[in-house]
Amino acid sequence: MAKKKAAQKITPASVTQLAIGIDIGGTGTKYGIVDRDGNVLFAGEMSTKKHKTVNTFIDELHQVVSEVIDTAGGPGRMKGMGVGAPNGNYYTGTIEYAPNLPWHGIIPLAKLISDKFQLPVTLTNDANAAAIGEMMYGAAKGMRDFIMITLGTGVGSGIVANGHLIYGHDGFAGELGHTIIIPDGRIHEGTGKKGSLESYASATGVRLTAIEFLEKSKKPSLLKKVPHELLDSKAVYEAALEGDELAIEIFNYTGKILGIALANAVMTTSPEAIVLFGGLTKAGEFILKPTRESMEENLIQVFQNKVRILISHLKEAHAAILGASALVWEKEQ
Amino acid sequence: MAKKKAAQKITPASVTQLAIGIDIGGTGTKYGIVDRDGNVLFAGEMSTKKHKTVNTFIDELHQVVSEVIDTAGGPGRMKGMGVGAPNGNYYTGTIEYAPNLPWHGIIPLAKLISDKFQLPVTLTNDANAAAIGEMMYGAAKGMRDFIMITLGTGVGSGIVANGHLIYGHDGFAGELGHTIIIPDGRIHEGTGKKGSLESYASATGVRLTAIEFLEKSKKPSLLKKVPHELLDSKAVYEAALEGDELAIEIFNYTGKILGIALANAVMTTSPEAIVLFGGLTKAGEFILKPTRESMEENLIQVFQNKVRILISHLKEAHAAILGASALVWEKEQ
Repeated sequence: MAKKKAAQKITPASVTQLAIGIDIGGTGTKYGIVDRDGNVLFAGEMSTKKHKTVNTFIDELHQVVSEVIDTAGGPGRMKGMGVGAPNGNYYTGTIEYAPNLPWHGIIPLAKLISDKFQLPVTLTNDANAAAIGEMMYGAAKGMRDFIMITLGTGVGSGIVANGHLIYGHDGFAGELGHTIIIPDGRIHEGTGKKGSLESYASATGVRLTAIEFLEKSKKPSLLKKVPHELLDSKAVYEAALEGDELAIEIFNYTGKILGIALANAVMTTSPEAIVLFGGLTKAGEFILKPTRESMEENLIQVFQNKVRILISHLKEAHAAILGASALVWEKEQ
Repeated sequence: MAKKKAAQKITPASVTQLAIGIDIGGTGTKYGIVDRDGNVLFAGEMSTKKHKTVNTFIDELHQVVSEVIDTAGGPGRMKGMGVGAPNGNYYTGTIEYAPNLPWHGIIPLAKLISDKFQLPVTLTNDANAAAIGEMMYGAAKGMRDFIMITLGTGVGSGIVANGHLIYGHDGFAGELGHTIIIPDGRIHEGTGKKGSLESYASATGVRLTAIEFLEKSKKPSLLKKVPHELLDSKAVYEAALEGDELAIEIFNYTGKILGIALANAVMTTSPEAIVLFGGLTKAGEFILKPTRESMEENLIQVFQNKVRILISHLKEAHAAILGASALVWEKEQ
């Protein structure tokens, strides 16, 4: 069953028109009603996983979201719905071959949702939605050129240039996580490609680096006591906090590679700032310092000491909903 | 003295408004009058190098360009001037620390030219101008998302997304030539950075690869007979035409690296096509085949077999003028 939470903050003055934000993940789907200032007025969550077909998923989504719509003043107040989903295509409104969703092939998701709710629907992938959320409500507020990078289980990105998100010719632009940083480097289990950013600078990547470093290094390390299945970026962070040299080296190595990727992205679109979001950013300066140093080291002079690396302002619990809802306001610009 | 050439083709019907294109290089400056269809009506060239100050340069530029303006119907027919120059900044209209120009520091070039000619002036760097030329008149005509890459002595690029060139926050976006492809790889003499695309996929880079391969390889090769100072991409091409294995390996190696860079660019902005321009493209399939193969190999599935690699349609003699003039028409869109 869906659980519904009351909003923490309501600003009645700004509640003239509202947007619905829906973030579809492999396990669960989050939804919420958001005002123009980025206040999440009502929010809830339901299961994605249990729905073997997209039709029963849409039925439940309609049921639970209709409840919050009614609580928030009815469909008349809703300007539209924004949906963030893996492999979501902005142009076609379809989800295409998303490996982590229970429904395979090409799904006309925006049309299905729009028909059911009788509201305009904008779809994009989750990282792009996060970038727009950051531009509307977060650390990139007012910026016309910035890059948002999510460092989670994988690495996602959304690139904004000239004030607009770059969707590219086919709607799939912004896959910095799959750019090759170390040719013939570590193989990516999902894509089969070698040396992509995601193979190193994700939670999964940090875990693999930790395993490699532990195998090779003869240094004493707190991480040697951590059972293999618990060896994750959190464990590495905790060891680094204790001054563990190997843990610090793992972050240095990760930051070095992330910094090259950021330098390449900067020399491509020359953003004002890069906003980082996601689990890996919790390692703070352990990851940020080597990242910043490597980025500056690899930038040509004209770009040096110009680009800020920021940590997202959005609360993690609501970031996905905010990002999706921001698609509604972005559309009108 | 400036030499003036008559145009090869005049289409009087389209000659309602005209644009002036100026391309400033380290040695010479080309200028021309161009109509909306990309016909170069009048063109000429003068020296950049001999002018120790920008003021005497502007004086001569005014003198020679005024002549062609008068021949083409006077200033009243001119919609504006577009200027392509190394390190030209679109936003500020300044040239900033251009290593190959005789005038150092920050030069307010657009203002100087505009004051002298009493015409609106748009400035950008030469690779960006080439991209806009390609979009207005060339292989990328009508495309909203493409990347232009010039493979000459160096590697320049201009990226178009959502129908507009990406200038970035500071006006310097689109430096794909400086992105790092081989971390800790070959050092770039100009920038001091290691492993950038330009260190490999430029005329200079091919020459360095040839020298390295000749030192290492025990294979017989026609290139062993070429004097060191004549070892350039043309010599390598000629040897490849004769079936020389080492020469073919040099292009394979170059194409492999260029292909990684193209794959990274594709996964960043997802263009419809990549347009290549410049000396290295004359090696044809020797360079294009390994480039295409490497690009596809490094792309994740969603981008594979979608992006065309095209060779520029613009005539090399006029490409720079066309690119610069296209800035005038682009501005109005």
